[in-house]
This record gives sequence, structure tokens and C-alpha cells, in this order.
Amino acid sequence: MADTLSHQLIATHRISGDMTPGSEIALTIQQALLQDILGTLVMLELDAMGLDRVHTSPSVQYIDHTLIQQDNINADAHLFLKSACERLGVWYSGPGNGISHPVHMERFGIPGQSMVGCDSHTTAAGALGMLAIGAGGIEVAMAMAGQPLYLTMPEIVGVRLEGELPDWVSAKDIVLELLRRHGVAGAKNCILEYYGPGLAGLDAMDRHVLANMGTEMGATTSVFPSDEVTRDFLRSRGREADWRALAAEPGCRYDRDEVIDLSTLVPLIALPSSPDKVVPVSEAAGQPLHQAYIGSSGNPGYRDIAVVAEIVKGKSVAGNVSLDINPSTRRILAALIDEGHLGALVAAGARLHQPGCNGCIGMGQAPAAGRNSLRTVPRNFPGRSGTREDSVFLCSPETAAASALAGVITDPRTLDMPYPRPREPQQMQVDDAWFVPPLPAEQARQVDLLATDNTPPLPLLKPLPETLEVPVLLEVGDNISTDDIMPAGARVLPLWSNVYASAEHVFEAVDPAYVARAREQGEAGHAIVGGANYGQGSSRENAALVPRLLGLQLVVAESIARIHWQNLPCFGVLPLTFADPADRARLGQGRRLRIEGWREALAAGRDVTATLDNGETLTLRHELSARQREILSAGGVINYLSRSSDASFTS
Amino acid sequence: MADTLSHQLIATHRISGDMTPGSEIALTIQQALLQDILGTLVMLELDAMGLDRVHTSPSVQYIDHTLIQQDNINADAHLFLKSACERLGVWYSGPGNGISHPVHMERFGIPGQSMVGCDSHTTAAGALGMLAIGAGGIEVAMAMAGQPLYLTMPEIVGVRLEGELPDWVSAKDIVLELLRRHGVAGAKNCILEYYGPGLAGLDAMDRHVLANMGTEMGATTSVFPSDEVTRDFLRSRGREADWRALAAEPGCRYDRDEVIDLSTLVPLIALPSSPDKVVPVSEAAGQPLHQAYIGSSGNPGYRDIAVVAEIVKGKSVAGNVSLDINPSTRRILAALIDEGHLGALVAAGARLHQPGCNGCIGMGQAPAAGRNSLRTVPRNFPGRSGTREDSVFLCSPETAAASALAGVITDPRTLDMPYPRPREPQQMQVDDAWFVPPLPAEQARQVDLLATDNTPPLPLLKPLPETLEVPVLLEVGDNISTDDIMPAGARVLPLWSNVYASAEHVFEAVDPAYVARAREQGEAGHAIVGGANYGQGSSRENAALVPRLLGLQLVVAESIARIHWQNLPCFGVLPLTFADPADRARLGQGRRLRIEGWREALAAGRDVTATLDNGETLTLRHELSARQREILSAGGVINYLSRSSDASFTS
Repeated sequence: MADTLSHQLIATHRISGDMTPGSEIALTIQQALLQDILGTLVMLELDAMGLDRVHTSPSVQYIDHTLIQQDNINADAHLFLKSACERLGVWYSGPGNGISHPVHMERFGIPGQSMVGCDSHTTAAGALGMLAIGAGGIEVAMAMAGQPLYLTMPEIVGVRLEGELPDWVSAKDIVLELLRRHGVAGAKNCILEYYGPGLAGLDAMDRHVLANMGTEMGATTSVFPSDEVTRDFLRSRGREADWRALAAEPGCRYDRDEVIDLSTLVPLIALPSSPDKVVPVSEAAGQPLHQAYIGSSGNPGYRDIAVVAEIVKGKSVAGNVSLDINPSTRRILAALIDEGHLGALVAAGARLHQPGCNGCIGMGQAPAAGRNSLRTVPRNFPGRSGTREDSVFLCSPETAAASALAGVITDPRTLDMPYPRPREPQQMQVDDAWFVPPLPAEQARQVDLLATDNTPPLPLLKPLPETLEVPVLLEVGDNISTDDIMPAGARVLPLWSNVYASAEHVFEAVDPAYVARAREQGEAGHAIVGGANYGQGSSRENAALVPRLLGLQLVVAESIARIHWQNLPCFGVLPLTFADPADRARLGQGRRLRIEGWREALAAGRDVTATLDNGETLTLRHELSARQREILSAGGVINYLSRSSDASFTS
Repeated sequence: MADTLSHQLIATHRISGDMTPGSEIALTIQQALLQDILGTLVMLELDAMGLDRVHTSPSVQYIDHTLIQQDNINADAHLFLKSACERLGVWYSGPGNGISHPVHMERFGIPGQSMVGCDSHTTAAGALGMLAIGAGGIEVAMAMAGQPLYLTMPEIVGVRLEGELPDWVSAKDIVLELLRRHGVAGAKNCILEYYGPGLAGLDAMDRHVLANMGTEMGATTSVFPSDEVTRDFLRSRGREADWRALAAEPGCRYDRDEVIDLSTLVPLIALPSSPDKVVPVSEAAGQPLHQAYIGSSGNPGYRDIAVVAEIVKGKSVAGNVSLDINPSTRRILAALIDEGHLGALVAAGARLHQPGCNGCIGMGQAPAAGRNSLRTVPRNFPGRSGTREDSVFLCSPETAAASALAGVITDPRTLDMPYPRPREPQQMQVDDAWFVPPLPAEQARQVDLLATDNTPPLPLLKPLPETLEVPVLLEVGDNISTDDIMPAGARVLPLWSNVYASAEHVFEAVDPAYVARAREQGEAGHAIVGGANYGQGSSRENAALVPRLLGLQLVVAESIARIHWQNLPCFGVLPLTFADPADRARLGQGRRLRIEGWREALAAGRDVTATLDNGETLTLRHELSARQREILSAGGVINYLSRSSDASFTS
């Protein structure tokens, strides 16, 4: 039978498991991507494992989140990470180089290779035909140590793009259309595989926009063919030799089919505060505007900023709007300068920021309370901007630029000008002097990790007791994100490498009293009850580790987002779902529940019976593999690897 | 008798007082400069006074300190300030326009005019032949309300510049030489008036460097003639019509004379952590480097960044160094882009930041703990960078660039290349669309101030009791700065508009237990004992207001820096000095002292007798004018103006 590209990529890297959707499969991993917030924990884990040198190649540590440096914590962390890179054989991409995802595409991405990254948007490399998966930091650490990556075999969704985009409609509008159709959980346990004649009009960074934001639908990853567009991109970066053709085989069948006729799309916008609250821009037009934010991995292309420059050139940004420009990579910034686009932006009154994640993850550029901010970023979860009472919309660069000029939300099609179609310069070679390459093995062994006050050793987690008997200390609604669990923002992000300090901030915007209740309950443990899609969003593993440190033993939800679901047992927390979603109402805050002999109960089948303190019983469900149950039994993956006699880090 | 330029400027603006050094004089004030940290308090004060429209013109509110926006507080403050500008007839220069001092020179500075600003570096406008003085925000508020500015008539120091600067030596080295000779209090109660043949080689922004950093010597201000160089500068900004010739009269006599032969200077560097710990760069050469920071009002010129670009062009910044580029104004950033300098910097591996004060005042770019940071900023007080255990050196852009390439502190004369001498483009017109001009009076009256959670009304301060009887709750050393008293940095700066929230941070790096002791003592009041030059540095008035709120009634020091000395009685605190500096040893922490009938004692003469709790007596001294004593008696200037029947705000 003809294979989809996704099946080809998985088959190439598969070690074990069968490729039926829902089965656990194990994949060899070639490349690893680390960002700075979670990279610190990964390095601490690798060091705790006693690893000599990483097995993935290239492995790249990016400094893109912690750029504010309001005190020494960020700069100290950069030095710690650089020393860890030197010690362990990892590339170091320092502050100022830009956002991991587009920089990785420019310098390291290779069609057909597998990659894991401790950032949910690692999937963006699918734009080059990579099999790129975001995971918790601990899973990335295991892959770097030579272990396979375990994954639930996803369904393959074929997304056929037909026709051509109209003027003033661009890649962001395509992915917003998918979010409009399917919502933030619409691609859970799926790979979105793009194909069709509409692809030819999307350059590599346009494809990045789609591959990046597949994550917003909960997709395992997104995959694009490696074609002449891919070849052009690699050629421009001086890496044509890394190109190879990849495509689905003619006549292949997808598990699900999706068709988008690009010619029918209009400019779209996601209303506050979820990426799937999508309507045509025309429906939101006229609302007052406070900020227009351009940049992030959600629109990282040269084109994405150049088109804004062309729109505002010779005009002035409205007096009530802050137009914030965030170049995505050093290479793209240099080209924007050379081609005059940056000059046009500055002259029009835009604010220029350093290349990096910046305001997308609440590191600066936070809007005023309750004021509308239009952003080209991938997410608008409440408070993610850094402002608790924020009002963030997601849209294309065209929509943001038109709105910045008008001072109100504006459909860019109403601009009285021809649609600009800026193209990247032919030569976009990346200078290797911008990176620190891995040291040769012998030199590396001489390097010591540079410890800082903010990188204390990880706590030793005890395995769960044989009988779980815990109160529900927190009950939350649907679509709780890892941002809700472990906040980002300039205040908390610098503390992520320090699990003790960051514990104070768990769930602070959802329920500021939760931490105190958890501390009071202490090691006796507690449960959290969630709704649908619990733990959506970023891959941050501390959203599992730090609540466990606070005594979390059990999460029961209607459904749990994939990466967070994997992270929970890795840190010794049992994730269960309601067999009957209606039962959620029976398990409110303050209820106690008891599960006897949970190890045996889990091994016996999918369903587990819990007894409530009112004497009722409840049927709960698990999807854990035998391997995950072993990890959970050990109290998490670090215990598991320490006990395992074959933890020799060779796959 | 022939007049110095300083005497001419003072005579032009003098309302009362005689021009003998040490006498109090009153000046009319034409222009006002506000920055955002202290501007918020000024606007609250003007609002509390019921002022309808400011009397100074132009008055300009700059947003240059609060650019990080890690949560809504900064952006909320920008909206508050913009509304206050619209209400009161003030220009608004929003975030992204750059640092107040160089922007003011470019767009608003006029030779011969008087200006007051709530920023100690307001003096920089002396580069254009203005009489520009930094003061506490409350004094700026009074000037904006039409009151005169009261000042101790300074001595005039004639600084004659002879010869020409050698290659690789620039304006920063001249002012570092003055700091080397005279120290951080060497120009207290002085105006530094520059003249001589060496001036011709210094462009307007070079002169800015000197006028700016006169503040680091405690100077009242610095003054330059308005000559053809000044004319060229104003012409390039499209404002030649604002030019007029100004110079000292031939044969005038200065109170003190200083000569610098520019041809004898070498590259200089101030060691951590005081601007006057100056040595030749060659003596510090070879020390390891972590950061090179370019920018700030201490080196704001186009040339100052272009010369760095020329030095690093085609090369790579050392892997261990972060080269941080901070353009000073939007106009200069635009020119750096157009002329290819920004591209050269980015290609060499520099990090680019938005125009603004940024790391100079601890708002981002803080170095790692204990690592050497070379900066072109005006100050290196301990912790000002945002990093408590910092190690900041001050130097020229040339020295910082050479060191960034080498990776260690490097004398730029050792570079194997011709000395670059970049010149500003001829056309540097500033676009008025970058500013929001004052509203017409009738429209302005319709505008309401936009209050925020972080702009609570100022506290009502009680007058001091008739008898002071207070314990010494804090004893500090020499050269305590207002940074030590009221910390800056990204964590605390956003709270400055909220005196209640910022109170927690007073003296936190000097003695973290001080606030608790003060709160315990409460309204019973307390004293602080200081050494020489107490309260040096920035003009921040909250360094007087907030300790007063915590119960501070009395400061006794060996000497008190001018602006802080003025601020103390404005907020109801009595500033005294030791008649015999040796007595400082007798007034340690924990001692109590008693001053009976302090109003009469002060009125009777310069000396005041205090009785200690061990029965000894101590002779203390004051320099307060009758007007200052009245203000102090009222409990500060707001009480004073509220009680004064002629508080009609017309001068």
C-alpha cells in the first residue's frame, strides 16, 4: 500500500511498536533542540545521570526565552548552559541569535531526520520534512542519553491545500482556519500532513507558521514534503547538500482527510483568549487598539516582518498604538536591515526589540490591563502576555500592520494600496561564528558544570504509596494550559531552573490559595480534577514536576493533553480520565477518593475503581503502557533509570 | 567686568538672590524635562495642586526608563502619563523614541534657555548652551506650576580644553580624566564651564558626554558655548532657526581654573564600583570580560555607536562576551540603519536593544554575578546594573569595542587598524509624528487623568514635632547614592509611582533589616547617619519622600549631595552635617539624639546643638535658607503650597 510521508518518516525511525493509531511506538531520535527555560532542567538531569556525552547530533541549546536579564539570574543561567554544552557535546546558540525554531531551520534542520525538543513548537521543523516532536524535558534528556522516544502512534490527517491565497491573506490565516474548524484539541493524537497544489505558494517559513501552530490544535506534529521550495530555502542558507526529496507516495490513504481551498480564505483573527476563537477580521473591525505585536515562532519569516514594513512605509503608526517588532533570527534581522525594511519600520514609529521569544511568552512588551493587543504569536492563553487581565488577539502580520496604522482593528483588505509581496534575498547564509560548536570529547571532559544559586539539584521523588487516599485540593475547568499550571512571564520564568522557588507560583492565576492548601496537606498527597484537554499548551515538564513536589499524586480529568499526560508519570503522578465524563460533577473540590492497590489495578486493564468519601464508587480510566506503569511505580523516570541495570545510555 | 557664560545665563534668568557663590538664587525656568519613573509622581503632584496647565514650554514627558513591560504596570503608567500630558499641556515622547537627554537636544533644546528636569542628567543640555539643571521631581513640579527654581549660587569652574584628542581617545576619556582628578564630589556646588580651542573638535553629542557626566562629579550643571558646532547640530536637525551664538566674554575670570591638554590623554577606565576610580585602560588590560554595553546618555552620539560598528565590522565578537547595543534615539537608530552600521554590528554578533535607558538603570541586560561588564554609561554604583554583586567598569565606546573583540579588557590603541572617524549624516531631521504635541487648552480641559492601581494619591506628611528625639536606625559610609537609598532595577522601578509599595525596598542592598526597624519605630521617627557625599547620584525625590513615609525625621552626614539635600526638606526631613567631621564616630547606630526647639535653633544660626542619650552634646550644622526652613516647618512643599495664600502658580 502507498505510504503517507508521515508513515515513511515513522517507519524509518521506528525501533518497536506497531503503527496502528493508539499503540505505543518507540523512535530513534537524531537531533535534539533545547530552549533555555527547560534546558536548564534537562542539563541537570543529564548531569544527574552521569552522562558523558550526548548521543543526539546535532543537539542545540538555544538562549531565546531568558533575554530580559533584570538581575543576574538570566545571565548566570546562560553561563551554566554554555558550560553544560561544552561538557556534554551540545551546540550553544547564545542570546541575540533568535528563536530556536526558525534558527534551527536555518542552520540545522535536515529533511527526513527525527528530532525531539523540550518546547511544544519543536514541531515547526516539520516545515522542512523533519519528524519533529515536542516533549517534556525529561523525555528530551532520555533521547539525548540515547534512549528511544516513546509515543502513541498518531492518526495521520491529510490536509490538502488547493488554490492560491488571495491578496492580504497569508499562512497565519490558513492555520487560523484550521483552528476555527477543529478547535484547540482538534488534532490531538494526530499528525497534520500537508500536501496538494496549494503548497507551491508557501515558502519554508510560511510552512513553519502552519507546522508551528499545529501544536495549538494538540497535534503530535505536522509534516510537509521536502520539495523545490525546501531546496530553495536550504540553498539560500548555503545548505543545499542537506536537501533530499520527500513526499507521500501517490495514492496513499490518510486516516482523516481535510481540504482547504486557499482561494476562499479571508483574513481571520482569534479573539481573546483562546487560539480557536476564530472569526473573520471584519467581524472584529473597529475595536480599539493598544498594541500590535509582530514576531515570534508563530510568524517568524523575513516576509512576515517585511510585509509590515511595506505596509507602514512612509506612514505613521497611530498615536494610541505601540507597534512592537520582534525579529525572529539574527539572519533575518540582518536581511531586514540590508533591504531597508527595518529603517522603514523605525521611521514609521515602530519599536524594535532584540530577536527572541520576548513578549510571546510574557518576557516584556506586556500590554496595559484590559487593552486590546493584536499579536502574530501562536497563543493567546489568558495572562500569557505577562498582563493578568490581558486581551490578546491572534492574527496575520498584514492584519496587525493595517490595524496599527488605523488605530483600530482593521481588515487589511480595506487598505488603499497594492498587496506587497516581499521576497527573501537569495543569499541568506548563516555565519557559524554566531554559534559555539561542541568541544571535542577529550576537551569536553575537562569542563566542569558552572553551578549557580538558581540551579539546585532536583528533589528525590518518592514512589506513590500502595493505596492512594487523597483529597481533591483543586478543581478546574476545560482547556487548562500548562501556562495556568506553571506560569511563564518575566517574574516566574527565571525561577524555572529552581523547582523550590518556582513552586510558589503553581496555579497562581487560577487559585492563589492552592499552594498553601497543598503545603498543608504535604506528603499525605492530593488530587487535582480537570475538565477536557487538561494540560494543553507548552511542553514544560515542571508543570508535572513542581506540583508533584507540592504533593500532587493524582490527576483526574475528562481528557489530558498529550505532552502533559506523558510528563505526569515521568514525575510520579498518576493521570486518569473519567470513564463517564458526567462523573466529573461527582468529584468536586474537597471530595476524597481512594484507590487500593493501584499498581495491580492499572496492570489489570484500562478501568480503575475509586471509592469516594461518601461511599460512592467511580470508574476511572488509564492509557498507560507497561513501560509508563513501571516508571510510575518507580516514582518517576530518574528513579527508574537509576534502578535499571541497563541504564547504559545506548539505544 | 567680563562675564563668564554661566554668569550671563544665570543673570538672564535670575529673579532674586545675589550671585555670590553660596547664596540662594531664584531662577525663572523656561523648559521642563520629565522622565517616566519620576514623572508619574510629578504629575500626581501637579494634579494634587489643581494646576490647569503647565507654565513651562516646552514641557516634555519622556518614556525611556520603563520599557521592559514584564506585566501591565509599565504600559498602564505610559497611558497614565499620556493622559496627564494631554490634561496639562505637556509633550509626550512615547516608548521607542529614546533617551530623554539626547532626544531633547535633537528636538527641543534651545541655546540660552533655562530648563529643569527630574533627572540628574538633565545637565546634558548644557552641551547646547542651555542652563539645564536636574532637581527633585517636586521642584520640577513647582517650576512647571510657574514657581521659580531655588538654587545655591555655584562657583564657576572654567575648564579650558587645549590641543586635539589623539586617535582612539574620545569625549568619555576627557570626563573620566576630570573624575580621576577630582572625584565624585569634586564639582559640588560648581558649574563646569567648558571653553578653549579644544572644543572645536567635539561635536554636540561629544559635548553631551561631558555635560552629562559633570553630574558624576556633583556639578550643579555644565555649560558649553553655543558656536558653529552647535549651529551645525541644530541645522542637521532642521532647527537652525533656534540657534544663537553664546560665549563667555573675553577676559572673564572663573572662580576656579582647570586645564586639560587633550593631546596628552590616553584611554581611561573607571574600575568597579565608582565613576572616579579611574586608571588608564592599559592598567586593567587583560582582565576577563563578560559583557560590553554600548549606549545610554553617557555616550549617546551617532558616532559612539558607529565607531563600534567600524571596529567590529567583518570580525566576530568573542564567544565569551555579550556585546549589547542600545541606540540612544530613534533618529540616531534610523541613521545607523541607513548607513550600514547596524548591519555590521548584527553580523559581528552584537545584540540589539530598543532605544532607551535600559541596562544603564538596571532595566535589562544585567550581567552575571561577579563578571566584568564594560559600559559606556555614566555610572557604575554597586548594583545599579541590576546585579547585586556586579563588576561594572566605565569606558569609551572604543575601549568597549576593542575589548569585545579580544574577549578581555583591551586598550583600543593596540588594535591593528586605522582609527575610524565616522561622521553623522548631514540630514538628521526629527519627525514630529514621533511625538504627541500638547492639546489646545480647551480640549485639554476635557481630558481626565487615567488613574491606575499603581498611582495612589501621595501621603499627607505631618510636620516634624517641636522637639526631635530620635534613635539612629541606620549608619552608612561615604558616597551613599540615591540608588542605595531607593533602588532602581526592573524589579523596583515600576513601583516608584506607588510610594507604599516601593517603601519595602528602601536601603535593601545596604541593610535589608532597616525597613523593619523603621516600621517598628513608626511615627516616633528616626535618624540616619551618613558619611561624605550622602545622597549622591540621581535626583530621585522618592529617596527623600519614601524614607520620610517610613518615619525618617533627620539625616546627619559629613556632607550631603546637592539635589538630595534639597529634596529632604521638600518632604519634611531635616538635613544636618557634623560641625566637626570627627564627631561622626560619636553617633553610631542605636544612639539617640535630641534637638529641642529645632525651628528656633535653625533660625538662630548655622549651628544646632544635639544632646545624646549618653549626656554628651554634639554640634551640628545646617545650610537651609529661610524659604527652606518654612517648607520644612510646614512638613514639606505640598503642605507649604496648600497653606500659602499666594499659591496661585504664577511667578
